[in-house]
This record gives sequence, C-alpha cells and structure tokens, in this order.
Amino acid sequence: MRATIMPKAHEVRIDNVPDVAIVEPTDAVIRVTRACICGSDLWPYNDGPNVEGQRMGHEAIGVVEDIGSEVRRIKRGQVVIMPFVDSDGTCLFCEEGLPAACVHRGFFGTGELDGAQAEALRIPLADGTLYPIDVAEDDALMPSLLTLSDVMGTGHHAAMVSRVRPGGTVAVIGDGAVGICGVLAAKRLGAEQIIIMGRHEVRIALAKEFGATDVVSERGDEAVELVRDLTHDLGAHSVLECVGTDQALGTAIGIVRPGGVVGRVGVPHYETTAAWEMAFFSNVTISGGPAPVRAYIDELLPDILEGRITPGRVFDRIIGLDQVPDGYRAMNERAAIKIMVKP
Amino acid sequence: MRATIMPKAHEVRIDNVPDVAIVEPTDAVIRVTRACICGSDLWPYNDGPNVEGQRMGHEAIGVVEDIGSEVRRIKRGQVVIMPFVDSDGTCLFCEEGLPAACVHRGFFGTGELDGAQAEALRIPLADGTLYPIDVAEDDALMPSLLTLSDVMGTGHHAAMVSRVRPGGTVAVIGDGAVGICGVLAAKRLGAEQIIIMGRHEVRIALAKEFGATDVVSERGDEAVELVRDLTHDLGAHSVLECVGTDQALGTAIGIVRPGGVVGRVGVPHYETTAAWEMAFFSNVTISGGPAPVRAYIDELLPDILEGRITPGRVFDRIIGLDQVPDGYRAMNERAAIKIMVKP
Repeated sequence: MRATIMPKAHEVRIDNVPDVAIVEPTDAVIRVTRACICGSDLWPYNDGPNVEGQRMGHEAIGVVEDIGSEVRRIKRGQVVIMPFVDSDGTCLFCEEGLPAACVHRGFFGTGELDGAQAEALRIPLADGTLYPIDVAEDDALMPSLLTLSDVMGTGHHAAMVSRVRPGGTVAVIGDGAVGICGVLAAKRLGAEQIIIMGRHEVRIALAKEFGATDVVSERGDEAVELVRDLTHDLGAHSVLECVGTDQALGTAIGIVRPGGVVGRVGVPHYETTAAWEMAFFSNVTISGGPAPVRAYIDELLPDILEGRITPGRVFDRIIGLDQVPDGYRAMNERAAIKIMVKP
Repeated sequence: MRATIMPKAHEVRIDNVPDVAIVEPTDAVIRVTRACICGSDLWPYNDGPNVEGQRMGHEAIGVVEDIGSEVRRIKRGQVVIMPFVDSDGTCLFCEEGLPAACVHRGFFGTGELDGAQAEALRIPLADGTLYPIDVAEDDALMPSLLTLSDVMGTGHHAAMVSRVRPGGTVAVIGDGAVGICGVLAAKRLGAEQIIIMGRHEVRIALAKEFGATDVVSERGDEAVELVRDLTHDLGAHSVLECVGTDQALGTAIGIVRPGGVVGRVGVPHYETTAAWEMAFFSNVTISGGPAPVRAYIDELLPDILEGRITPGRVFDRIIGLDQVPDGYRAMNERAAIKIMVKP
C-alpha cells in the first residue's frame, strides 16, 4: 500500500509500505477515504521529522476493513471518524471527557502511531478511538464531518477552555483552519464580538462568513493597540490562541482582559517567559492543549448533520495521494487554507 | 512619623519621614495598628528595591484618622482592613469581583504607593479600598483579621482559581504563610486529600493542623514522583503554587493531573519555558495572580468572626517598628513563618 513519509525537513514523499494488518486484538484496520494536511504538519515539515521515516497524517474518515478479536463496538464496513489520538475509552480521563489525555494515548502521524495520509491505517484501541457515523462514504457532508477529526474539535476546544459565553467578546489569533473553526465555534457558543486576527484575504473572508465581526491584520504591539481600541480598552474575555508561537502568545496576553482566559490550541514553541509573568499580574487564565475531539463529536455532529454549521468550507483544495508533496508546499506557502486528501 | 524604608538589597531601616496627610479628596489617613512582613517583601530584600527609598509593607489593619472631602462610606475612628492594593470600588473590574485589576489599582509598599510598615499611611480611594470591621482595635481576633489583607485571601485565591472542590485532591507548593493559608482554604472548600510540599518542621506541623493529609519534603523530580505515588499516579486535581520560582512551577506542572489546574499566587520569577509546553500536552490550566483579597473578605470574615478558621496562627512573632530590620532577617532566614508588626 502507499503512505506518506517525511524523510527530512521540506521533503515529503509517497512510498510503498507493507500493507497494514491487525496486530493487537483491540485493533481495527481502516481504508482511508478522506485525510487532511494539517497546519501542525508544517512544524515537522519545517523543523524536520520526529523519527526516521515518520508516517504523516492524523485526521481521517475511513471504512472499517478488519477488526481484531476483542473489538466489540466497531464493525466491519462502518464509516468512522478517526480523531488525531487513539484512546481506550475506558480510563478515568476518557470517562471524564478528556480522551486526549487517555492513559493509553498515542498521536497518529507523529512517530508514535502511523499516519493517515495513506491508503489504510491500523487503529489501536478501535472501540475507544473510532467514532462510527451513519453516513455513506461519499456523502456531501464529508468535508464537514472530516473536520471533527481535528480542526473543528480543536477550534471548539479553544472556545470552550477560554470560556466563550453568550454576549462575550472574543479574539481569535491565527487565520488557519483551526482559527477559522474557532470563529465558528465562538459564534455557535453565542459570542457577540469576534475579532479575527490574520491578514490572508480569503481566510478572513471565510472567517467573516463564519461570524467574525472585526478584523485585525496588524501584528505585535500594533495589533494589541487595535484590539484594545475595539474592546473599549478592556481587552477580550476570551482569546483563542491558534498558532503556538511566542509572538502569538504575547499578543494573546496583550489583548486578553484582566481576569479573562487564553485558550491555546497551537502546538507551543516558546522562547521567552515575559508573557507568563504579564498574565500573572492581570489574573489571566491560560488553558488548552490537544483537543479531546473524540468527546466533542457528540455535541458537534448534530449541528453538521442538520446543516447548522459547515466547517468543511475550510477545505479549499482536494488532492490525491500522489499530490500530497505539492499539498505540503501549498500549505506551507499559505496558498491553501486546508487540503483534503482522497487516497 | 516613622516608616520602613529599603535603601538597597539586604538593608531595611526605620526613618523619620514627613507625617502623612490627605492629598486627594478621596483619600483617608489611617493610623496603622497592625502590619506584617510578607514573603513577597523578600524579593526586593534580596534583589534590591523597585524605586529609590521604597516604603515597605502592604498588609495592615488600622484606625481611620482623617478622610478627604469626597469620602462617603469610610468614617473617622473606624477599624479597617487594608488590602495590598487600592481600588476604586466602582470600575468594571471591581464590580466583577476583581479589585486587584481595578483600573486605578496601585500596589502598596512597592514604590507605587507608600508602605504599611509605618506609623500611618495615606490610603487613596478610601471608599473602595478599605474594609471597615466592627471589632475593637485590640480584639483577640486581630491576627486572623490581619491575614485578610493578604495571605488568607491569597491562599483562598489559589484554591479558588485552581478549582478546589469537595472530595478533590490538592497539592500545595510552599510552606510559607500563603501556602499554609492555602491548605486552610482547600480544607475549607472540602478537599479530601491535601498534600503540603515543604520541609520546615514548624510550618508543616501548622499545615497539618490546618488540614494537610500528606507531607512531601523532597524537591524536584523526587517530589514529583512522591506526589504521583500519593495520587495513584494521576496527579492532583488542583495545585496551589505559592512560591513563584521556575522550580516551583515546574514541580506544579509535574504533579498536576491532566485536565487539572495550577493556581499560582507567588510573584513569578521564571527563566525557562519547558513547564509551559508540558502543561499544554496535558491540558493543564494555569490561573491566578494578585488575589482580589478585598472581594474575598465578605466570604471569609464570618468564618473568622465565628471561629471556624484561625489563619492568624501563621504569625509566630510580634515586633515593634524598631525591630522590623531584624524581622526581615528572620523571615529571610526562614526563622519565622510570618511576622506581625505593631507600630
């Protein structure tokens, strides 16, 4: 079968690899019908892979082809959403709604588990990990359903942990797919003012359609000033930090209101501590992490099935497996918001 | 009148300074009947003052001697608690219960406002800042009431922002007066397991009387291991970080449970970013800052007046103004938990 490998920074290729098969009795094997390239794939793309021969991709929808002898809930032939981590579904953290902290957690496509930008994938702990959906594998809702494997759940997580509330003021840092989904999540939760911070015209346009009320395209101190002006010099109740850089976090702390919350979902790459000390003096709460997307599907799925939200609009390019290397380049040059892969 | 001045690091002296007087019509002048030396006074004591001739002290109870022409609520002769910041009592943040973020906030004894280790003190925004209590100036409850100006309110803040809940597991980092009050606050909020982390025998003994169920005296990785053992390898739901150093924060992140909260109230002095990245991957929330102690008095005062809590037991030495320089030395050598000053 064919799968996406990252041999070194700025290089992605499609290799022939051994066919996947059941290893543990709790495994399933899925044929990947939809996968994605994620903004977070660009960290190893630019900095180099975590492990030799890293298999890429952590978002998928697929069809169950095989199951191990101890799989009880998942059945062959089901269409399933694959969240970006596996989880046993039974540990304390899974039961508390935080499967992203499952004691058996592994991340797909990071070297811990194989990747979804491939024809097929072995899914450990299939009963806990996979979320079956009663939808045909080529349903028109597929793009939006696919976002439940990561970006919509992650945007929703940023909104939840930053305590977005009806009537609240929200700023979203980052106009990638997660930031745009964060706008949608904030709107869905009733925020009154939603400031999107980004500079890419197409992305901003989509963010506005999703509910952004204001746009700040500047960066650094200038951006902080503008958001403060837009919020009557109070700052935002909730800041969704969807980037992960030192600068993004500094901006988040600069624009959040005293006593407010920064919800961070961008994989952190920090260099300085100044923002953390500043946050202290305004009693700012900093929350977030890898989203428990598996746990959020129950809440978000009906809104997609009934057409109330269409997060699948973040996909602006659909490619086959062979075009995945081009897809990485396009994502890295910000020529695409988010790319769907049909293996 | 006499007041405490810090000319340079490791030097504190009592100087004769001009008598205080009303400057703004919203001011009051209090005769200080009780003040304290605080653990946070040791930061400038060791690193040097913030401003030339810094007046020290930010915790006090006093008697109102004079009021400005626009003071309405505070009356001459009242016994009042002075929180460690001033606040107007009318801004949005004061109304939302966060007077420590008042738009007119100033910190006493930091160079922003004069200090309370003095015979008298000018209190800006007296109506918003001072909390009158119906107690004689020499009442036996004075030590506990005095802790409402900072350490009990601050320990309570750490417990509140770290979401201590009935039946929860709590770890408290730091066996200073704030940490010990944090134990008391966690017990008061119904925590089932309270692990105090410290090594000073007298302090630990008091923490146990206040409700600590376990003691960890080790530091660093060893401490993390021990707390993990004590919490069935899950970590604590709530960690009260009452120190502010890089090491203390690293320990806090190491012992908090995924999805848990670190409430930080120690003035931060960070050097590295590793803990912040680690917190992300376990979805740990970090909250806290200068405690809104003024807002907490309503809740804590009845428990003191009715004898349910006795935070005043943290005071293990009472001195006059002349002994303040010795008091700083004793606090710095950890020979005293907390020192009360009777000017």
